[in-house]
Amino acid sequence: MQKSLSVYDSDGSTFAPLVVIELVSETKEEAIAWLLNRVRDKQQDGGAELLVEQLTPGAQGTEKDNPNVYVVGASWQRLLYGAEDVGLFKEFNDGSMRGFTYANKHNFKEFQGDGDGFLSMAECQYIIKHELDNLRAKDEAHVPGYPKMKLYPGKSVIRRMQSKGILVQVFPLHEKEELKRLSFSWFKKIKLSFQPLDDIRHYFGEGMALYFGFLEYFTLALIPMALIGIPYYLFDWEDYDKFTVFAGFNLVWCTVILELWKRLSASLAYGWGTLSRKKAFEEPRPGFHGVLGVNPVTGRAEPLYSNAKRQLRIYLVSVPFVLLCLYLSLYVMMIYFDMEGWALMIHDEEPTFWTGLLLFIPSIIYAVVIEIMNLIYRYAAEFLTGWGEWDWMGGWVDECILFNFFNCFASLFYIAFVMQDMVLLRQSLATLLITSQILNQIMEAFLPYWLQRRRNKKAHKRMIKTMEDKELPLSEQVKLEADMSTYLGTFDDYLELFLLFGYVSLFSCVYPLAAVLVVLNNVTEVYSDAFKMCKVFKRPFSEPAANIGVWQLAFEAMSVIAVVTNCALIGMSPQVKSYFPESETQLIMWVVGFEHFLLASKFILAFVIPDVPKHIQIKLSRLEFESLEALKKRHQKEPVYKRLTYHV
Amino acid sequence: MQKSLSVYDSDGSTFAPLVVIELVSETKEEAIAWLLNRVRDKQQDGGAELLVEQLTPGAQGTEKDNPNVYVVGASWQRLLYGAEDVGLFKEFNDGSMRGFTYANKHNFKEFQGDGDGFLSMAECQYIIKHELDNLRAKDEAHVPGYPKMKLYPGKSVIRRMQSKGILVQVFPLHEKEELKRLSFSWFKKIKLSFQPLDDIRHYFGEGMALYFGFLEYFTLALIPMALIGIPYYLFDWEDYDKFTVFAGFNLVWCTVILELWKRLSASLAYGWGTLSRKKAFEEPRPGFHGVLGVNPVTGRAEPLYSNAKRQLRIYLVSVPFVLLCLYLSLYVMMIYFDMEGWALMIHDEEPTFWTGLLLFIPSIIYAVVIEIMNLIYRYAAEFLTGWGEWDWMGGWVDECILFNFFNCFASLFYIAFVMQDMVLLRQSLATLLITSQILNQIMEAFLPYWLQRRRNKKAHKRMIKTMEDKELPLSEQVKLEADMSTYLGTFDDYLELFLLFGYVSLFSCVYPLAAVLVVLNNVTEVYSDAFKMCKVFKRPFSEPAANIGVWQLAFEAMSVIAVVTNCALIGMSPQVKSYFPESETQLIMWVVGFEHFLLASKFILAFVIPDVPKHIQIKLSRLEFESLEALKKRHQKEPVYKRLTYHV
Repeated sequence: MQKSLSVYDSDGSTFAPLVVIELVSETKEEAIAWLLNRVRDKQQDGGAELLVEQLTPGAQGTEKDNPNVYVVGASWQRLLYGAEDVGLFKEFNDGSMRGFTYANKHNFKEFQGDGDGFLSMAECQYIIKHELDNLRAKDEAHVPGYPKMKLYPGKSVIRRMQSKGILVQVFPLHEKEELKRLSFSWFKKIKLSFQPLDDIRHYFGEGMALYFGFLEYFTLALIPMALIGIPYYLFDWEDYDKFTVFAGFNLVWCTVILELWKRLSASLAYGWGTLSRKKAFEEPRPGFHGVLGVNPVTGRAEPLYSNAKRQLRIYLVSVPFVLLCLYLSLYVMMIYFDMEGWALMIHDEEPTFWTGLLLFIPSIIYAVVIEIMNLIYRYAAEFLTGWGEWDWMGGWVDECILFNFFNCFASLFYIAFVMQDMVLLRQSLATLLITSQILNQIMEAFLPYWLQRRRNKKAHKRMIKTMEDKELPLSEQVKLEADMSTYLGTFDDYLELFLLFGYVSLFSCVYPLAAVLVVLNNVTEVYSDAFKMCKVFKRPFSEPAANIGVWQLAFEAMSVIAVVTNCALIGMSPQVKSYFPESETQLIMWVVGFEHFLLASKFILAFVIPDVPKHIQIKLSRLEFESLEALKKRHQKEPVYKRLTYHV
Repeated sequence: MQKSLSVYDSDGSTFAPLVVIELVSETKEEAIAWLLNRVRDKQQDGGAELLVEQLTPGAQGTEKDNPNVYVVGASWQRLLYGAEDVGLFKEFNDGSMRGFTYANKHNFKEFQGDGDGFLSMAECQYIIKHELDNLRAKDEAHVPGYPKMKLYPGKSVIRRMQSKGILVQVFPLHEKEELKRLSFSWFKKIKLSFQPLDDIRHYFGEGMALYFGFLEYFTLALIPMALIGIPYYLFDWEDYDKFTVFAGFNLVWCTVILELWKRLSASLAYGWGTLSRKKAFEEPRPGFHGVLGVNPVTGRAEPLYSNAKRQLRIYLVSVPFVLLCLYLSLYVMMIYFDMEGWALMIHDEEPTFWTGLLLFIPSIIYAVVIEIMNLIYRYAAEFLTGWGEWDWMGGWVDECILFNFFNCFASLFYIAFVMQDMVLLRQSLATLLITSQILNQIMEAFLPYWLQRRRNKKAHKRMIKTMEDKELPLSEQVKLEADMSTYLGTFDDYLELFLLFGYVSLFSCVYPLAAVLVVLNNVTEVYSDAFKMCKVFKRPFSEPAANIGVWQLAFEAMSVIAVVTNCALIGMSPQVKSYFPESETQLIMWVVGFEHFLLASKFILAFVIPDVPKHIQIKLSRLEFESLEALKKRHQKEPVYKRLTYHV
């Protein structure tokens, strides 16, 4: 915990600031007072029972600075109760992971003294965010001072104020000392070592740590493919016999690494306490809206999400939107082919070195356009499915993956299976892959960094001087961090890995060097992602995650599609065709048979390899067994109470 | 409960007999005394704490009758404690299903008074079997009186005595009144109605009820296929266009019905309390053998199963055995084709009505031989993997399904895809299907009935007179039931359905009438299976089951294979071929594309339809949530105790 910084509470005691709330500068006084009261109120009165103070501007404070910046903290006791509320799992005395309870706190392994080192700062911030999000309107009809800002019982106050633009942002503070240590062990010392996943998890939370764990695992898993790919590039391009072996190896390898990742991820998540924690049992996300109802599982009062409304929105808005985008994507693809044909015509008329270079120009332009279209689609989809309402884990994720897949690979499929032009396929694949890698590295780390530098042009020199200075006052730190860009979650990072995986696996028998390029990209990706998390973006709230979610499925689907494409490519190669000179039918039968064999092997392999390692499975079963036993015991201890409640 | 019958306990009180133990007549006195003591001993002394008495021969008892027949019962209290031991789930006051505990018994819905109607007779018998099976050797080195009958700590006593031939059988008694009512509502009144599944479950247990539920569901699900199939038979045989539609419908239908069955089965199993009950948390099956160890999940002492030893047995015994059987099966198939060719030759030389009939003879013979081979394989496999040791849920099930699949369908695959003779395929399919149906009905119901009648030839007239007589003495009833055949579990019944499903689905576009035949077969199957359960076989011990287990997977695998075979058949049809007169390649590409589309649809459909209905899922989640909450509370109540035990 950040002990160097503290602010004075209203009753004169100090507390460590954890989270910053920024309201627009012209917010009405009564709205501010109301919000602060709700944050400070006791929980039984529907408040969050947190500590909150206005940030006093520092010595360098100017008139322009927004005065409505508040820092939020909490007492240790409140945070420990909060840990119980959000259902954190911690290591128990006997080495198993158990749901934390305040009353039982001394039985947890790392709980010492009054427990002020028990929760990491990221966990404290997560708890505060959870409590703020769950500040719900009671009988207020609207936000005080703003008659148009309607509220109804159960509506998240923070969410409504944010969607209406009064609340600018809520973000957690960095802790400079810890960040410095983390940066050093993560990316500042250049040496071959694994990433400090536990430290990353400690600072950024489980979702982020799983992303970096997956990035590292994926890179390591690609190394064998890359090593096998190099001799193909160095020696003979055109020997399809060997490519068949290469593709076969790739396909089996993809299945194995995805299955093993599930096991590794389960081990990591168990140790971090997120595997046993059930998402369904948490309090609802603030994104849930609607009138209050009773959750059928937990019995808690919470807003019920109207499913029918969402379905309607999907059919009326999303489907036409996706179709329109797909059409646009196809249209752009056709323009690309026109350009390609035009470049080829010029090159054929008068072939020089420069026209040879010209051949790559259409692919490069196309790659840039694809990236732009992906970006536009992503924000448009987020906007359409209600980004303004924070509902960003909604329906757009699947569609966005589908659209990106189509957008990136449609042209390659067309070249491979309609034009059947292997030379163009290889050239196009290489150009798309390399261009998108370069663009991504620029877009996601260097551009925001550069933008931020430009924005802080004046403050920059001061920042450089003071960022390293331990005595930087809180008001300065808050001001600097408030201006940093906001990290929008791991979606874009996973999406990038997913598309790279597509480039490697879908057409691996045509361009074996792809794996080498992706490995090189991923190594720099680790550094640029680590850099952007530590230096470029605001600290994100930690997101407890037990696995990589929809991405596991997406990667597995990609590896199934890769079986089909690679088998088709092998079947189309002249070398394989020459084995069946008299009968094309027989060739196809063999290829289809081989493909079915590979698909069946994949499914059997995925079925046979258990998703969770045995020792973790035993621990999970043990938790379940002991829970059921405890439930039986509980009923025995309070039969009268139970009978009374059931007869009410 | 059977109140008309009772025997006197050693202390003069009476108890209702539930289970019969039969020892060979020359068993040594000391072994009998030892066994009875172990059965009667208190649980803390390692006994089963049950009531057991020798059966006194009735008035008609002859010298020949075995005197070593014992009836076992238990007090109500003991049975209720046993229900807690085996982890029965019962309906709680609030309508949810909860693990039963004795201390909390009054909070369960159907518990009234002293609870003598709370457990069904089948459940009582299951509990008694469980307790008998778990009578384990303590420090005895061998069974008293039999120095060669070695024991070691943890070895199941009953199991060792059974494998060494001293214990002839252990079986539960029928209850005549209830059986009569069940028979009447089940198969004696001929009218269109669903089976009384709850009554079947009440009398025979969940495993049996799920089998009959599946049989009924499967029959109903086939009716649409049968209805669509009839016009194909009545009007035009050879129109492949329509067959394509028919096959497409079948393939989608198969996926849908299998997915819906999972949901239906989950609903049934939830209501019966077996869905929430975890197999892994039960005490070990008596089949587990090895030295005592500690179960890592439940912490109970139990024999640890040696996995390596089993693996070795599989590789050294099962694999060569399966290969040998497959070779034999292929050899028989070749003989069948020789016979087929010979019959065709005779018919071609001089075609008459009789030679036309002769054409069917090889198929009929082959069908009979297949049935015999399946039967021999089943018993051989059971014997090889240790049937004598009761380990019958071991490794042979999967192999047996595979062998039966190969044995039944190899010839059809050969005719369809190697010989490509659609006329022979249809003829062979029809003959195999009809012959095997007839054989099965004879083999599984009428043959055992006839055998039993012949065995009881002398006693028969007396039986007829007394079976209807309510005053039939216990000794007579035991004697009659002991002579009945033993039902070996639902495996054979499911296997039969599985093979029928194969005949319907694999080649559905060649022989649409198959579904009609299977529906007709299944309707009689319900009656003959019900008849054999009630009249022919000993009452089986109930088997708690939450689903149909490996059969769900087997049926799904069959429906995937069916997609491949049907698409291939459609592609091979002359009508489809005529669409692509110039290019066979294009034809194959279309067929392969269509097949991939169907396969992808199947997987997406299976993924999208939830396996458990939402309201059941909510109840399961609620149980899990409350269990975890109870575990948290438990730790709070006994922190000192917990800390002490963990430091031991």
